[in-house]
Amino acid sequence: MTVTLGLDFGTNSVRAVLVRCETGEELGTAVVEYPHGQSGVILDPRDANLARQHPGDYSVTLVESVRAALAAARAADPGFEPAQVIGIGIDATGSSPIPVDAENMPLALQPEFAENPNAQCWLWKDHTAHEEAATITRLAREHRPGLVARCGNTYSSEWFWSKIWHCLRVDPGVFVAAHSWVELADYLPALLAGVSDPAAIVRGVCAAGHKALYADDWGGLPDQEFLALLDPRLAELRDRLFSQAYDASTCAGGLSPAFAEKLGLPAGIPITVGELDVHYGAIGSGIEEGVLVKVIGTSTCDCAVVRADRAMADIPGICGIVPGAILPGYFGIEAGQSAVGDIFRWWVEDVCHGDGSLHADLSAEAAALEPGASGLLALDWNNGNRTVLVDQRLTGLLVGQTLYTSRAEIYRALIEATAFGARMIIDRIVSHGVPVRRVVCAGGIAERNPLLLQIYADVLGVEMQVSRSAQSCALGAAITAAVIAGPARGGHPDHATAQRAMAGVKAESFLPDPDRHAVYDRLFALYGDLHDAFGGVRIVDLSRLMKELLAIKESTRI
Amino acid sequence: MTVTLGLDFGTNSVRAVLVRCETGEELGTAVVEYPHGQSGVILDPRDANLARQHPGDYSVTLVESVRAALAAARAADPGFEPAQVIGIGIDATGSSPIPVDAENMPLALQPEFAENPNAQCWLWKDHTAHEEAATITRLAREHRPGLVARCGNTYSSEWFWSKIWHCLRVDPGVFVAAHSWVELADYLPALLAGVSDPAAIVRGVCAAGHKALYADDWGGLPDQEFLALLDPRLAELRDRLFSQAYDASTCAGGLSPAFAEKLGLPAGIPITVGELDVHYGAIGSGIEEGVLVKVIGTSTCDCAVVRADRAMADIPGICGIVPGAILPGYFGIEAGQSAVGDIFRWWVEDVCHGDGSLHADLSAEAAALEPGASGLLALDWNNGNRTVLVDQRLTGLLVGQTLYTSRAEIYRALIEATAFGARMIIDRIVSHGVPVRRVVCAGGIAERNPLLLQIYADVLGVEMQVSRSAQSCALGAAITAAVIAGPARGGHPDHATAQRAMAGVKAESFLPDPDRHAVYDRLFALYGDLHDAFGGVRIVDLSRLMKELLAIKESTRI
Repeated sequence: MTVTLGLDFGTNSVRAVLVRCETGEELGTAVVEYPHGQSGVILDPRDANLARQHPGDYSVTLVESVRAALAAARAADPGFEPAQVIGIGIDATGSSPIPVDAENMPLALQPEFAENPNAQCWLWKDHTAHEEAATITRLAREHRPGLVARCGNTYSSEWFWSKIWHCLRVDPGVFVAAHSWVELADYLPALLAGVSDPAAIVRGVCAAGHKALYADDWGGLPDQEFLALLDPRLAELRDRLFSQAYDASTCAGGLSPAFAEKLGLPAGIPITVGELDVHYGAIGSGIEEGVLVKVIGTSTCDCAVVRADRAMADIPGICGIVPGAILPGYFGIEAGQSAVGDIFRWWVEDVCHGDGSLHADLSAEAAALEPGASGLLALDWNNGNRTVLVDQRLTGLLVGQTLYTSRAEIYRALIEATAFGARMIIDRIVSHGVPVRRVVCAGGIAERNPLLLQIYADVLGVEMQVSRSAQSCALGAAITAAVIAGPARGGHPDHATAQRAMAGVKAESFLPDPDRHAVYDRLFALYGDLHDAFGGVRIVDLSRLMKELLAIKESTRI
Repeated sequence: MTVTLGLDFGTNSVRAVLVRCETGEELGTAVVEYPHGQSGVILDPRDANLARQHPGDYSVTLVESVRAALAAARAADPGFEPAQVIGIGIDATGSSPIPVDAENMPLALQPEFAENPNAQCWLWKDHTAHEEAATITRLAREHRPGLVARCGNTYSSEWFWSKIWHCLRVDPGVFVAAHSWVELADYLPALLAGVSDPAAIVRGVCAAGHKALYADDWGGLPDQEFLALLDPRLAELRDRLFSQAYDASTCAGGLSPAFAEKLGLPAGIPITVGELDVHYGAIGSGIEEGVLVKVIGTSTCDCAVVRADRAMADIPGICGIVPGAILPGYFGIEAGQSAVGDIFRWWVEDVCHGDGSLHADLSAEAAALEPGASGLLALDWNNGNRTVLVDQRLTGLLVGQTLYTSRAEIYRALIEATAFGARMIIDRIVSHGVPVRRVVCAGGIAERNPLLLQIYADVLGVEMQVSRSAQSCALGAAITAAVIAGPARGGHPDHATAQRAMAGVKAESFLPDPDRHAVYDRLFALYGDLHDAFGGVRIVDLSRLMKELLAIKESTRI
């Protein structure tokens, strides 16, 4: 028996999963929440845009979760031994850059910066850099249109350069002290491999290509001349960062003796290049050409792949199309919604002041409603719009309320809004030649919300499947570890073989109902009007919108 | 000592108030809820537009409330005797027409129609006749533009002809059985005076002019030829209704011996012509030229008066400009918002599942917020828009939600939305020559919601005063009763004299803060954009709206 370890560094916690290479069986799993902040996220009550993580949390929770997963595997299978672990795969959220010194030590771990959030990890959902993102977008459109065409023609406040530049402007002391900036997904393999020089870190093309404007065809990171338009100090930083990034066929190093001892694993076993969590999640969900993988959690990430030998043009509004970003040999295409589960949580907990049981009650009530029967329509922009508008400075909207509107109707309208947002994304990529024959979902929401999956099936008009594993990201990391370890050590020769052996979907799937799909077609047209009007796509005549919602509502009454 | 009795038939209950003619002192008050339906309103779970009242409730609650008020007055002042009551004033909601037989008996009181909601009183907020209203509007604009120009160029589903026509279409049996239709405000004085012939009822010009398209200058009700365009049976009905309507200087009859005995009051004392509740409420709040009276309750009615010898043009979107409708000798101008308190109640009770204490908690939290700080903006159209759009088929809207938006922020945004709606109305009438130097508020919400009054002062930029009486409508009816009784019986010679003696405002008023007013000017411009876009006034570029809300939010942070 051979086993690989998948490590998934999420927004609130780390998951460690030990997986059998032959079958995909999950032998042991452990989840450990980051100790700092609110569920691991450091917030600022004066600035809702700020979201950081304490870099010290990663090594602590890494050791704790791996040891717990090993203990769980031993308890489940007395035949299991840590020596059977042949490789480690790692994914993390992103773009979550960390400022580090010349020894690859995060600045936040140094006494001088111990209390400074700007020296911590700038978590993906930090939006403090929205002004910098807008300026990068403007300058790139003017001077380097190719740069931003690759990422939907708009550079996001969530991404690498926006955050580093914002740090330079608001806290030059941190910027000057930072020898380099490292994506969390790259920092973690380097930490395990004992890499103490930022220039020696094996950087993943996934984060680099999607978030840092890296591409081989323009020589790596954006050129110094362009970066100097932002700030000469960014141009100067460029060459201290990295010149080459690698896909998931690459080994990032071997497990260092120090960490081998801490974890109780064999020293020297290979560690994969780090990818963004959802990209390994896509692999763990069985991504292939024609399959869209949706990882649905607090936010949503959509992944698709297209064979690298096809001609792929840029797709407006799509965050990234990066060769090798998900699967080696394929273009990786990433899109996403800035808030999905977060919106439901906001409604149930923050507005209705309920808990998990209210989620269940509202789901049951909402499930009894027919599409259109509430007369409500919402925009799913409570945390901005990542795709296809790429604009964090958009907000939520709800229309159609009467004096009889119930909280369950609003709950359903919010789910529907996220489904319409999902449809916007699929329509956009399909119209640019990316095939979508079925959708495989992963993530917490997909696991436990059949109402949402049925609504998505009815809105999208395609079959919705659910990844068999509850830990698809960690599983994808483990699958990749099996490929990196290779057949000689008991792993797999390539991703397709490894996915066939280790990944799969659940037997129960969700099929669209034609009648409900027809009603949702009408509602989606109105969603498109709101989307385009408030998103700045076009000026829309909205004078009939409320009346059309009422007409749909009345047509649902038999 | 002389005393008059004011009777106010509201949406949920009747109020009886005994008032001293010399001082306005309220000697005894009683409130009795209607027994049928939900708080007196009969609803249909299958049709949110339906709202009826059972006509049998009126005489029962009338007797009960008057006897209770008499008992309260006797308890408060041993010198009080029912023989000191020199007149009765009556107001009621409207347009609330009741189908009656040839003996003025409501059809709902007959066994054949006992369970038929169409035979009951069609309460003002019944919107089942929205299609008929739209057709009346269209036909009148085409064939009789003058008819609807007087009522804001749009005829409402809340009004007399829409409701009667809808009854004809959905329940011809009731229509055929109805010899006449009588406004509740006209039915009640006739009931007390023992009038048993619908043709002999003294009809008030207030309801007739504002709701039934009555005007002396076109010969009373709309002509038969026009009504025949709707339905020949409506043309036929016209001459069975009435040919003349009267202002508040008119006596509707003397108290019948039968009711004198039931109530314990002197037979033969004069009864005023019935007016709509808010119109007598305006009198009870001290209306005069330059004063806008806002009666703020579940919905809101705005009243203003302009001397009848001035030239008054029609005002687009204003429900009515009717000579004599409020004060004799003045144009009465009425506008209103379809839901105000109802929206707050919906939010607190139906969505947040709270009670009175949550109203207080949210008020306290909302009071601590600065204008614009939530980033939210709402439309106050949960029950349609009465003025200035005159469109019941509009619905609510909330924009600007993030993942951090609180229920108290939404509560405040809803109050602000009603304030913006109020400002739309004032801007419209002021721009058409109606002076508004101060605002006097009355009604339950004005009584107990200082937060709302401060927000209104800050949004409107004018001083907000509160009527001294908690029962302004009943007080205005009692004031009018004192005028009808006249000086010879111990009443007053005219309304101005009676108002000086009997009405007034509270010492505490609410003054606008210039800084908050400036922020609200910015928000009101955005409200205007939403209002015009969704209300069909003009096509609006909304692409900057969310960003402008964020900019205002950010500018409130010091």
